[in-house]
Amino acid sequence: MDTLFRLENTIADRRRADAATSYVASLSARGLPVIARKFGEEAVEAVVAALAQDRGELIGEAADVLFHLLVMLAEKDVTLNEVMAELDRREGVSGLEEKASRSS
Amino acid sequence: MDTLFRLENTIADRRRADAATSYVASLSARGLPVIARKFGEEAVEAVVAALAQDRGELIGEAADVLFHLLVMLAEKDVTLNEVMAELDRREGVSGLEEKASRSS
Amino acid sequence: MDTLFRLENTIADRRRADAATSYVASLSARGLPVIARKFGEEAVEAVVAALAQDRGELIGEAADVLFHLLVMLAEKDVTLNEVMAELDRREGVSGLEEKASRSS
Amino acid sequence: MDTLFRLENTIADRRRADAATSYVASLSARGLPVIARKFGEEAVEAVVAALAQDRGELIGEAADVLFHLLVMLAEKDVTLNEVMAELDRREGVSGLEEKASRSS
Repeated sequence: MDTLFRLENTIADRRRADAATSYVASLSARGLPVIARKFGEEAVEAVVAALAQDRGELIGEAADVLFHLLVMLAEKDVTLNEVMAELDRREGVSGLEEKASRSS
Repeated sequence: MDTLFRLENTIADRRRADAATSYVASLSARGLPVIARKFGEEAVEAVVAALAQDRGELIGEAADVLFHLLVMLAEKDVTLNEVMAELDRREGVSGLEEKASRSS
Repeated sequence: MDTLFRLENTIADRRRADAATSYVASLSARGLPVIARKFGEEAVEAVVAALAQDRGELIGEAADVLFHLLVMLAEKDVTLNEVMAELDRREGVSGLEEKASRSS
Repeated sequence: MDTLFRLENTIADRRRADAATSYVASLSARGLPVIARKFGEEAVEAVVAALAQDRGELIGEAADVLFHLLVMLAEKDVTLNEVMAELDRREGVSGLEEKASRSS
């Protein structure tokens, strides 16, 4: 099973766990503003890693971005499937545009 | 085939395309600082969507974040597999910790 | 008169101007989420300029950050004086701490 | 003397202080990527405060943004005067444009 979908399930489970022992539950208990802030901070760290640090740092920061994005989506009842469907839809449109531009 | 891995392949192809017709190629031609900036801006938009807009906006912004994250990783020769392996590794560690805390 | 306080006055005037001709009025008409997003994007651009661009770019991005911070504060009815008072208060506390540590 | 210019002087002094007792010296010792990251994180916190918290939180976050912006500028040898001159220049241009649009 795919890493991100499995992680989405794990996050859904952990949100109902004890905030004293689960990081996800503690984030969820603190609410959406704290979760959005954490996601934004991880994104800043990924930007800095990409521009000023090595590949290993960027891998770790990208993982942090994905993890906190999933926590943020869960808090807004958005599923990973909905985001993937949006990416698929755009690639379909983009593929059609490219086909059109090639045939012109 | 999984959406993100397929998108990673598409981005790898488009980076070698004509910057005049491909958004990915134009980003790649402008270089890592512009790509990192775009990723960071999309992350800010996702934060704002989560806090002040509806689910539909957040789905779109999350898709933008993932797309530009993949472009940024490609520019630094980091593969999606490396990031997923890091998430798997953490979940393994986290699962062990949780198991340990349950048995204590 | 100080640049930032004069700019704060200018922004207060422009918020009541015609959104068709004033950038500040158009931001204000679009509302706080758009203003916060613009501020956040300018901050990302300043981070990128500091890490990957020259002094001239950073000067421009820092000016953008300050401008949009003032627009965001105005939208929340926070005055520049309140922020400066907070900085003064912290420096006072910090100065006292330093004095204490020196005399110890 | 103006708060921000006084703070700029304080930061210039503290950068040469002992990193064990001065926050500014410890930031400077850790280098520009850490400073840029801190500035970016404070900006994210200001965005979240503007959208989801009260005036008091926003005042504190705006103060954090200004403080870390000054530390980042100092690390790149950019003076507050240069940023203020850029804001003055823009307002001059903007004023002329507005005068021109009124006389048309």
